[in-house]
Amino acid sequence: MDFEKQLKDDQAVVEVALEAFVRQFPGPEALGEAMGYSLLSGGKRIRPILVLEVCRLFGGASTQALPFACALEMIHTYSLIHDDLPCMDDDDLRRGRPTNHKVYGEAMAVLAGDGLLTAAFDIMSQGDLPARQMCRGVGCLARAAGPAGMVGGQVLDLAGEGRQLRAEEIDEIERMKTGALIEAAARLGAIAAGSTPEQEEAAASYARSLGRAFQIRDDILDVEGSEAELGKSVGSDQEREKSTLVALEGIPACEAKVQVLTREAVAQLQGYPGSEFLCTLAQRLALRTK
Amino acid sequence: MDFEKQLKDDQAVVEVALEAFVRQFPGPEALGEAMGYSLLSGGKRIRPILVLEVCRLFGGASTQALPFACALEMIHTYSLIHDDLPCMDDDDLRRGRPTNHKVYGEAMAVLAGDGLLTAAFDIMSQGDLPARQMCRGVGCLARAAGPAGMVGGQVLDLAGEGRQLRAEEIDEIERMKTGALIEAAARLGAIAAGSTPEQEEAAASYARSLGRAFQIRDDILDVEGSEAELGKSVGSDQEREKSTLVALEGIPACEAKVQVLTREAVAQLQGYPGSEFLCTLAQRLALRTK
Repeated sequence: MDFEKQLKDDQAVVEVALEAFVRQFPGPEALGEAMGYSLLSGGKRIRPILVLEVCRLFGGASTQALPFACALEMIHTYSLIHDDLPCMDDDDLRRGRPTNHKVYGEAMAVLAGDGLLTAAFDIMSQGDLPARQMCRGVGCLARAAGPAGMVGGQVLDLAGEGRQLRAEEIDEIERMKTGALIEAAARLGAIAAGSTPEQEEAAASYARSLGRAFQIRDDILDVEGSEAELGKSVGSDQEREKSTLVALEGIPACEAKVQVLTREAVAQLQGYPGSEFLCTLAQRLALRTK
Repeated sequence: MDFEKQLKDDQAVVEVALEAFVRQFPGPEALGEAMGYSLLSGGKRIRPILVLEVCRLFGGASTQALPFACALEMIHTYSLIHDDLPCMDDDDLRRGRPTNHKVYGEAMAVLAGDGLLTAAFDIMSQGDLPARQMCRGVGCLARAAGPAGMVGGQVLDLAGEGRQLRAEEIDEIERMKTGALIEAAARLGAIAAGSTPEQEEAAASYARSLGRAFQIRDDILDVEGSEAELGKSVGSDQEREKSTLVALEGIPACEAKVQVLTREAVAQLQGYPGSEFLCTLAQRLALRTK
C-alpha cells in the first residue's frame, strides 16, 4: 500500500465532489460564494477520508460512501464558520485565511453555516444506497452533530471559558465537540458498506481513540506551533482562557497519552485485512506537526 | 366537521410532541432551555398542522406524520431565532416575548438554532414510516429549508433591504423564504401518507397559494396591526426599508390578491373527500387579524 498516494487520491475524490456541489449550487450566487469560500479552503479532509476508507475496509466501494463523506465535511465546515463568529470564539483567521464573517459579514456567515448544515442532509438522502442505509446515516450524523454531540459540546466549551475545568470535564467537552463527528465518520463508512454491527463498533472505537489523540495533538500544537504553520493564532486557547489537557497535565504527559490512544486505535482494526491505510493514518495524525 | 375542535386537537398533538422532545432533551441543560424557550412559545403551529392534515386527507394516520410535523416546526423555529439575531433583522420581540438572543445571549441563540435544525433531521429519520418515505421526507425538507429555499430567501431578503424591489423580486423572495417551507409541509404530509404523485402535487399547489396569501396578509397586518396584537413591532418592515407588496400596490389590491389566492388554494383540494378542514383553514388564514 502506498499511503501517500492513497491519501492524495482520496483527498482528490472529496475535493472534486465538493467542488461539484459548489459549482451546481442551487441558491443565490452570493450565498454559494460564501459557502464555497469555507468549504473549499484546503482542509485536510480527515473526516471524509475516514468515511471513504472505513467503507472500503468493510468491502464497500468508496464511491457509495461519497455523499456521506461530503455531508460530513459540510457539517464540519459549518461548525467552523459558526464557531469563528464574533459572538462565539471571535477568530479572524482560519486555515491561514480570513474567517468567513471577516470576508462576507456576520449575517452571511450565519447563513452560509445554516446553508451547509441543511444541504448536508439533502445530499445524504440522495445517494445511491438503499433508503434504510441512508436513513441510518442521516440519524447517525444528526445525533453526532446535534445537541448531544457537537452543538452541545460547543455550549459546554463556551460555558467553561474563564474557569479551570477538571480533566474529565475537558474530556467530555472534546468527546462531544470533536470526537462525536469523528466517530460518526467511521460509522457512516460502515453504514455505507452495509457492515455488521461488530465491524461498525470496531470502526467507531478506532475513531474514538483517534479522535481523542487528534484533539490532544491539536492542543499541543496550539501551545507549541507557529502562527504561520497552524494558520490560526497560536496560544488562542490560552488567550480565551480555555482549559486544555496540555495546560492541566503538561506536554510530556499529553505526548504519552497521544501514543497510548494511537496504539488503541490501531489495535481495534489491525485484525481486519486491508486496514493498513487506516492504521497508518492514525499514526501519521499522532505525529503531525500542523 | 367541527373546524375549531379539530384545529385545537391538532395543535394539542403537536404541542405534546414538542414538549416531549424538550423534556427528553439529550444535550446540556442550558441548551435545552434555550431551544425550548423558542420552540414552546405558543406559535400557531400552522406548518405542522398542514403536515398532519394533508396526511389525513390522503388516508394516512396523522400520528405517522408527527415526526415530520415536529421536524418542520423545529426548522421554522430555528429560522426565527437566527433571523432575529442582531446581525440579521435585529429584533427584540417575537410572539410578544423577548427574542432568544435577548434572553440567552447571541452565542446561545446561534447554537439553539443550530441544535433545532440538526435535531429536526434526527427526528425525521426515526419515525415509524418505511425508510424510503423517511428519506424522501429528509430530502424534501432539506431542499425547502436550504440554499434554494428558506436560507436562500433570507439572503435575498437581506440583500434587498434599502432598495425598492419589483413585484417579481418580492414574490421570489417570499416564495423562497416563507413559501418553500409551507409547500414542504404539504408535501411531507403527502409523503407520510404514501400518496400518489397527483395527490402530492395538488397538496403542494394548495400550499403554494395558501403560503402566498398568508405572506401578503402578514404584510398587511404589519402595516395595519397593533404591536400588542402581533407581538412584534408594527411597521418593522418599513423601518428596515423592506419592500413589500403592500407598499408597492396598496392595501386594497393586496386584499383582493389574498382572496384570489385563497380561492385557488381551495380549488386544488375541493375535489378530495374530507378536504373541508384544509379548505376552511385557508379561508380562516386569509381573514386572520393577527
